[in-house]
Amino acid sequence: MDLPLVPLGKPRGERADAKRNRLRLLATARRMMAEGGPESVTMDALAERAGLGKGTVFRRFGTRAGIFRALLEEEAVRFQELVLAGPPPLGPGAGPAERLVAYGRVRIGFLVDNLEVARAAMERDSRLPAVQVDMTFAHVRMLLRQADLGVRDPDSLAMQLAAALEGPLLLYVSSGRDAEAPGSEAGLRLADAWQDLVERLFRSGPK
Amino acid sequence: MDLPLVPLGKPRGERADAKRNRLRLLATARRMMAEGGPESVTMDALAERAGLGKGTVFRRFGTRAGIFRALLEEEAVRFQELVLAGPPPLGPGAGPAERLVAYGRVRIGFLVDNLEVARAAMERDSRLPAVQVDMTFAHVRMLLRQADLGVRDPDSLAMQLAAALEGPLLLYVSSGRDAEAPGSEAGLRLADAWQDLVERLFRSGPK
Repeated sequence: MDLPLVPLGKPRGERADAKRNRLRLLATARRMMAEGGPESVTMDALAERAGLGKGTVFRRFGTRAGIFRALLEEEAVRFQELVLAGPPPLGPGAGPAERLVAYGRVRIGFLVDNLEVARAAMERDSRLPAVQVDMTFAHVRMLLRQADLGVRDPDSLAMQLAAALEGPLLLYVSSGRDAEAPGSEAGLRLADAWQDLVERLFRSGPK
Repeated sequence: MDLPLVPLGKPRGERADAKRNRLRLLATARRMMAEGGPESVTMDALAERAGLGKGTVFRRFGTRAGIFRALLEEEAVRFQELVLAGPPPLGPGAGPAERLVAYGRVRIGFLVDNLEVARAAMERDSRLPAVQVDMTFAHVRMLLRQADLGVRDPDSLAMQLAAALEGPLLLYVSSGRDAEAPGSEAGLRLADAWQDLVERLFRSGPK
């Protein structure tokens, strides 16, 4: 049973032309990001560059931060696919401890790699996109249930471990608006600490 | 070295009359809470009941939620005093693992006991008062450094453990606006899960 994750992805029942517009807007936004950084991506500039009406962009994303949230979710869909069906240890086939370590390390790497997008997505909102935080909780809970650690309440522990992963990431993304190199020191330290935490938790036998 | 906590407490250099007003307002707010619940505590009603001008109440607390934040901080000062100088295992004198377990259990109990105040303090703000969250991080870090667990980055681990404690508490306080009995099931489960997490983390020797 490897499927209790929140289904990410395209809105259900999206019409063909709406889908075409969405994909075109996201591809254009990515191109603009690569050329001029996040500052270059505004609602107006995106509409013009994509050759679509401003109304379409507003209906789709709501706010400028909404563009970045959509970019981040697009990446999160790819990440979720790897978790559900990719090679081990992130995907199925490895033990729960190994998968939990891999999940945290890749999740941290994901936000380090998408730092500019994540920061722009959080503009005027101090939370990371909920859908990814929920994915973390669901996945950690599934692996802890599978592991059968002998703790009193695996689901509460899952909540605590998910917070241990997501909380510092939130701080990492929201603090220090200065650019940091991908694979930054801070990200690596968090990844190592996560691995130490998980390995110790699993290594110590039942009471 | 048991003192790296954030100093909570009265504003520095508070004038004697300002202090008298603050204490009178907080005592009055507590009395109103006890008699009529949080709904009964409004800026106007508090000013009238305390026999002080509305301007004084506004200058002191800013918003209605500010009253509850002040009440919560008053309790947090007492809690911090117990952590710094109270009896073990919460206070000095016990080992780091025991103190960490006690800190989490008492911190959870503190929010369970102050649930109505904490909920009212979070009105229109999805964060718990930062000063207490900072206290948790500072204390966890101090105990992890003391414990010398042999992990690669004790300070990152401290950040993760602090998030593991505070994150689910934030959810606990902010979700389910319905009244819950003190010592609720959810609080107890979190406390047990915290204890299991800390004990396992400390029990497993170095790699």
